Amino acid sequence: MNKQDAITQILKLVEESRTIMLGTNGENGFPNIKTMTNSKHEGYNKFWFSTRTSSMRVSQLKNDNRACIYFIDERNHNGLMLVGTVEILQDIESRKMLWSEGLKVYFPLGIEDPNYSVLYFTAKQGKYFNGLSNITFEIE
Amino acid sequence: MNKQDAITQILKLVEESRTIMLGTNGENGFPNIKTMTNSKHEGYNKFWFSTRTSSMRVSQLKNDNRACIYFIDERNHNGLMLVGTVEILQDIESRKMLWSEGLKVYFPLGIEDPNYSVLYFTAKQGKYFNGLSNITFEIE
Repeated sequence: MNKQDAITQILKLVEESRTIMLGTNGENGFPNIKTMTNSKHEGYNKFWFSTRTSSMRVSQLKNDNRACIYFIDERNHNGLMLVGTVEILQDIESRKMLWSEGLKVYFPLGIEDPNYSVLYFTAKQGKYFNGLSNITFEIE
Repeated sequence: MNKQDAITQILKLVEESRTIMLGTNGENGFPNIKTMTNSKHEGYNKFWFSTRTSSMRVSQLKNDNRACIYFIDERNHNGLMLVGTVEILQDIESRKMLWSEGLKVYFPLGIEDPNYSVLYFTAKQGKYFNGLSNITFEIE
């Protein structure tokens, strides 16, 4: 698997993934995992997720912004792990960017609901698995 | 959601999950995620996985045995995170217990292939998500 083939497959996997696993550093040094909805992304290095300000992962990320996200395509035995950091955003532009009516069930006060935050993940390094082979790459 | 209902749902989710996400503490303090095959389990607190001795996650787990595993049922918006520790086993009984002919593609030397290891995960705490509600529980 060369890098160009891998990137083509990675972009397809990112595009088709509706849910993404978010890994954070949890209590007492244990890793934690939570499912996030793939709301918006640019390429395979920038991702935005909506979340509750009061959630456990926001308090974990305030304490330690190191994270990873993971995409899986079970049918084709492909997986992608991106390692990077998360910023917690509450500015109105970021909130508007991710807003959809479906979010009202979580944030009844709408776009300005104080419990509505946006997680902005930036990848620094990636590892892509395709069957028995894998490729590790740095992201500028 | 009461604890008994949650446990019934958790056992069903564990039983039906073919793949499980394994979270480990990776390089430079970043969490890592990898997909594992749900090979064998007892209840919702003991899990065994086959893995390559030479794999990145084995070296991570040798260094730090704290881990989590995550199960997802996207259709029903259910998720289960179990936090615990991992032992790396290479004894013949554990290897035999997980062996299947399908593993030959990874371990061409068979059950005694030195690259064949078994990860034994024991859960200490769990968090189960069902739609908008969740329940956290300790495991004896």
